[in-house]
Amino acid sequence: MRTGLLGGSFNPPHHGHLAMARAAQAALGLDRVVLIPAARPPHKPLSPDMASPHDRLQMTRALAAAGGPGLEVSAIELERLGPSYTIDTIQELRRLHPGDELYFIIGADTVGELPTWREAARLLGEVRFVVVNRPGFDLEAGLAVVADRLGAAAAARMREHVVTMPPQAVSSTEVRRRIREDAPGWRDLVPPGVADVIQAERLYGRSFVTTFTTIDRLAEHAGQRVELRGWLYKQRGKGKITFLHLRDGTGVVQTIVNREQVGEQVYERLKGLMQESALKMRGTPRKDERAPGGVELDVDDLEVVAPAAGEYPISLQEHGIDFLLSKRHLWLRSSKQHAVLRVRNEVIKAIRDFFYEKRFLLVDAPIFTPSACEGTTNLFEVKYFDEFAYLTQSGQLYMEAAAMAHGNVYCFGPTFRAERSKTRRHLTEFWMVEPEMAWAGLDDVMDLAEEFLEAVVGRALERCKEDLKVLERDVAPLERVRRPFPRITYDEAVKLLHDKGHAFEYGNDLGAPDETAISENFDRPVMIHRWPQQVKAFYARRDPQNDALALAVDVIAPEGVGEVIGGGERAVDLAFLEQQIAEHKLPKEAFEWYLDLRRYGSVPHGGFGLGLERTVAWICGREHVREAIPFPRTIYRKDP
Amino acid sequence: MRTGLLGGSFNPPHHGHLAMARAAQAALGLDRVVLIPAARPPHKPLSPDMASPHDRLQMTRALAAAGGPGLEVSAIELERLGPSYTIDTIQELRRLHPGDELYFIIGADTVGELPTWREAARLLGEVRFVVVNRPGFDLEAGLAVVADRLGAAAAARMREHVVTMPPQAVSSTEVRRRIREDAPGWRDLVPPGVADVIQAERLYGRSFVTTFTTIDRLAEHAGQRVELRGWLYKQRGKGKITFLHLRDGTGVVQTIVNREQVGEQVYERLKGLMQESALKMRGTPRKDERAPGGVELDVDDLEVVAPAAGEYPISLQEHGIDFLLSKRHLWLRSSKQHAVLRVRNEVIKAIRDFFYEKRFLLVDAPIFTPSACEGTTNLFEVKYFDEFAYLTQSGQLYMEAAAMAHGNVYCFGPTFRAERSKTRRHLTEFWMVEPEMAWAGLDDVMDLAEEFLEAVVGRALERCKEDLKVLERDVAPLERVRRPFPRITYDEAVKLLHDKGHAFEYGNDLGAPDETAISENFDRPVMIHRWPQQVKAFYARRDPQNDALALAVDVIAPEGVGEVIGGGERAVDLAFLEQQIAEHKLPKEAFEWYLDLRRYGSVPHGGFGLGLERTVAWICGREHVREAIPFPRTIYRKDP
Repeated sequence: MRTGLLGGSFNPPHHGHLAMARAAQAALGLDRVVLIPAARPPHKPLSPDMASPHDRLQMTRALAAAGGPGLEVSAIELERLGPSYTIDTIQELRRLHPGDELYFIIGADTVGELPTWREAARLLGEVRFVVVNRPGFDLEAGLAVVADRLGAAAAARMREHVVTMPPQAVSSTEVRRRIREDAPGWRDLVPPGVADVIQAERLYGRSFVTTFTTIDRLAEHAGQRVELRGWLYKQRGKGKITFLHLRDGTGVVQTIVNREQVGEQVYERLKGLMQESALKMRGTPRKDERAPGGVELDVDDLEVVAPAAGEYPISLQEHGIDFLLSKRHLWLRSSKQHAVLRVRNEVIKAIRDFFYEKRFLLVDAPIFTPSACEGTTNLFEVKYFDEFAYLTQSGQLYMEAAAMAHGNVYCFGPTFRAERSKTRRHLTEFWMVEPEMAWAGLDDVMDLAEEFLEAVVGRALERCKEDLKVLERDVAPLERVRRPFPRITYDEAVKLLHDKGHAFEYGNDLGAPDETAISENFDRPVMIHRWPQQVKAFYARRDPQNDALALAVDVIAPEGVGEVIGGGERAVDLAFLEQQIAEHKLPKEAFEWYLDLRRYGSVPHGGFGLGLERTVAWICGREHVREAIPFPRTIYRKDP
Repeated sequence: MRTGLLGGSFNPPHHGHLAMARAAQAALGLDRVVLIPAARPPHKPLSPDMASPHDRLQMTRALAAAGGPGLEVSAIELERLGPSYTIDTIQELRRLHPGDELYFIIGADTVGELPTWREAARLLGEVRFVVVNRPGFDLEAGLAVVADRLGAAAAARMREHVVTMPPQAVSSTEVRRRIREDAPGWRDLVPPGVADVIQAERLYGRSFVTTFTTIDRLAEHAGQRVELRGWLYKQRGKGKITFLHLRDGTGVVQTIVNREQVGEQVYERLKGLMQESALKMRGTPRKDERAPGGVELDVDDLEVVAPAAGEYPISLQEHGIDFLLSKRHLWLRSSKQHAVLRVRNEVIKAIRDFFYEKRFLLVDAPIFTPSACEGTTNLFEVKYFDEFAYLTQSGQLYMEAAAMAHGNVYCFGPTFRAERSKTRRHLTEFWMVEPEMAWAGLDDVMDLAEEFLEAVVGRALERCKEDLKVLERDVAPLERVRRPFPRITYDEAVKLLHDKGHAFEYGNDLGAPDETAISENFDRPVMIHRWPQQVKAFYARRDPQNDALALAVDVIAPEGVGEVIGGGERAVDLAFLEQQIAEHKLPKEAFEWYLDLRRYGSVPHGGFGLGLERTVAWICGREHVREAIPFPRTIYRKDP
């Protein structure tokens, strides 16, 4: 069978397409011409007045019907994802119709573009081209480009089948222009069946946009037709109307599906459709103040892409936390988890922007470490080829090396603690950001810590309003996270505890209840500085005014959240550190490199570490840090 | 001994300070008054016309000398790092002079601010205040604030010692204003000795700034006095002049130290000063086109903060790579390593900005995984409490879960491969960024990959010009990294190899020499797509047109760099994946969660992974990836 192929956007199809098909058909005695609407024309950007694939298919079918026998339509390109390349189409058609002789019909004005098509040379070998020319058009210019890029033989092949037809006073652009501008006579340019589709679907009008959009931007498209892609969150039907909640990763929207609008057949498919089925929906967003997000979608077309294979394991009822964690890959889809991870995303970006703008150099600390930073307990051991390595607990010592090299630096990556304790504050794998500054003292560290926290919390408040609403977070306590933070000494903190009647022994570290009791006295984070040296790490600098104290600081967040930042000034004196390493019975050899930093240009320096998950949990008002990380790891859980 | 204390910026000290000291001295019969210049007044921001601590100390000493016996100067606050708090000063003085009765002298206009001082209530208990008032000033208003905030007893204590003196027509601000505006008579406001210092040091003039700056911004301060802090890179002396290269983490600058300028004593200290000694330098930057960075510093003051304890292990001569890696904590300080890490910093920020701006949600993949993503070889095993876990090789499977929850997502973190091979392309620990898109096909993945690489390379070119110069990188090949990238199929790639006479068996994966041979045919990265399914992972989607092919793509960077991106479309069909898991003999149980993604709303999706270190090494033109990460880990190295 001699088959002509005519591809294009068909946006919309018009009399010109018909004329072209017929001219080729007559000249070459073709048995049929197949019209092939392109899903995404590779040489045209997606434009706001590109009708949806569904509409273009409908219109092209109407065009073929108007053209009579010998005209067919293929959805072969529409069914493929991504851009449509002619070479792919040709190959598939050859496979589907091995006996056909294929003739690919193109306009003369397109010939010069051919060398830019995908695998153009190969394409010329696989199919005969029919060039439809019009009197007076300079076809030779286009053929010269082909000859130049693909060789003289290619140009010669193109010249084999040239058909000339009278110029057409119609183009898709012109049709759209007339419709958009309410210009008369647009109906004259297309067959009546095509005009019917345009009218029924209200295509190309002033408010016409057929575009894929996302739920968070739906309100911007109020009154315009759009397509949404997402998953069924819940539905409730009521006779002819079904309310269907769709989620797409940017939000959830209520859509209204009316049986009369979408047709009996589509409407029936909704029955029994289970949660998390994948859908494409088309329709018109309508502002409604009562709706969440202020907008609803009136659906006029709907496609079930993948029905859920069974009942969704996480239904809307309550589940135990162990069950939810075992289904974390699905639990992520729920609105609150979604909101928490969006806040996490924003907090991380705020942290990185903060340091980038302050010109702190990001120096990633290694995960594999040969030795422990703060003692050998709680370390994860890894078989490292024929030896053992340990997963990092903190990048700080490496940041000290980096600060001596680059001034102000930070690292931000996962850290690990093999803690057997199962509390709401602990994960075995968590992210920590650790800035370190050369030429800085304890006060500089505190200055940085308060500026940093204010910036990060402020950014989340500014850009995560909707997410914090979903989480029902009272933002008033967060709005008070403004500089200056109160700064009290450890001694003062202990006195405060004693004044409140707390039993607390001077010299101990603060426990969670102690931190909570202290933080209750302040309306914002409080910085506790100058700690008994024995509760802080060996590398902490001693207070020159009191050798029993370390120049360290903890920042305690309010609302019972507890420590979110720990840091301080580091010892600069070589002899002091050597003595510390001996007293703590640490292997000196493993710290030789660290001691080098005191041998070659030791300068005052300091920094801090902030636990990301605690910070995110605090901002989100979640009690447990495990919700603040996508895939939490605890003593009892390392999957999925 | 009855000791008065008079603190302040002394910027500059003037006759008013002298009058205040004398008034208090006379009224209370003080044996001496100690003037205490503050390092960083806690209630005043650092201002551009704040003279350096050194200059203020000099001037205050001149003031004391002019005031005659009974006036002393203490540098106690200048010697502390960070802001100066009176409470700290008082405590230290009490410790140093236990027998003294201390009187703290303040102006009446300062009384109302007292409650905002650190530990104000305690301060009132530790020292007597002397309030210097002037006729007609409303001291009671200030005392009312004290009473209100600190209690009536505190206000009563303040009232115990009030001294009244005539109003002074002088202030530090006025002195500076007159100097800056060349107003006559500024010398009348200060003792001659103070005026001498101001003149000699050219303080407060129109061009006067004493500010800490960094080498990369030095040119902005040309002609103004500044302070630099950094480390000695190298020096060469020649009689009265020493050329001293200083590095500070932002760059390296040549400074000129003239014996006559800095004085014999300081100049002598330079002799024998070894590389990496820590220094503070003051002087005036001078533009010089011949100098690197276009600027040199004429030094007029210099302080050795910490002389290096011995000869610097990494001298300017050549070292073997093993030695350099063993001294990585110091090697980081060298100019080229510094430049590479600055490029890395910029590339990482470019990546994060790219995805943030495109609204891809960052979803960090876990490091601990219960099972292998692409087979069990090359996995690091960790003892995880009473079980075992594995360090992640790729976050992709998790990103697929996240894409079904959030649409467009990415992860960016460390990944691990226990590869025994020691090549210039391999690390056991490296960072990978992995975007994943719901509702996307192979072409979308390729579109994203080329836009992404263009953006990242473009950003490095734009913002790391100086660093690439230091690395002597020819940027021409990088400037050609512009869309569109050529897209060829695996079949075409194999044909290309055969055409070049390469022995290559169809169906194999491409090796490094193959990649290099292919990339030589293109002037920019090339995308090779549609691979034999057996060389790609089990989850790759098959080409609907040819089941032997996987819809996968590798992006090969030019210049012999090889693969920097691998990705593709993922299988959506449950039955297909179950069959794949069985064929690959993978433990199905471990993949149940992954299969859930096909049970509940399976939609087309795809993404890719980019290896950070390969990308950074490529941009920097470094042959080996080990220089592209701060602390490289390989089979033979896990320290420092």
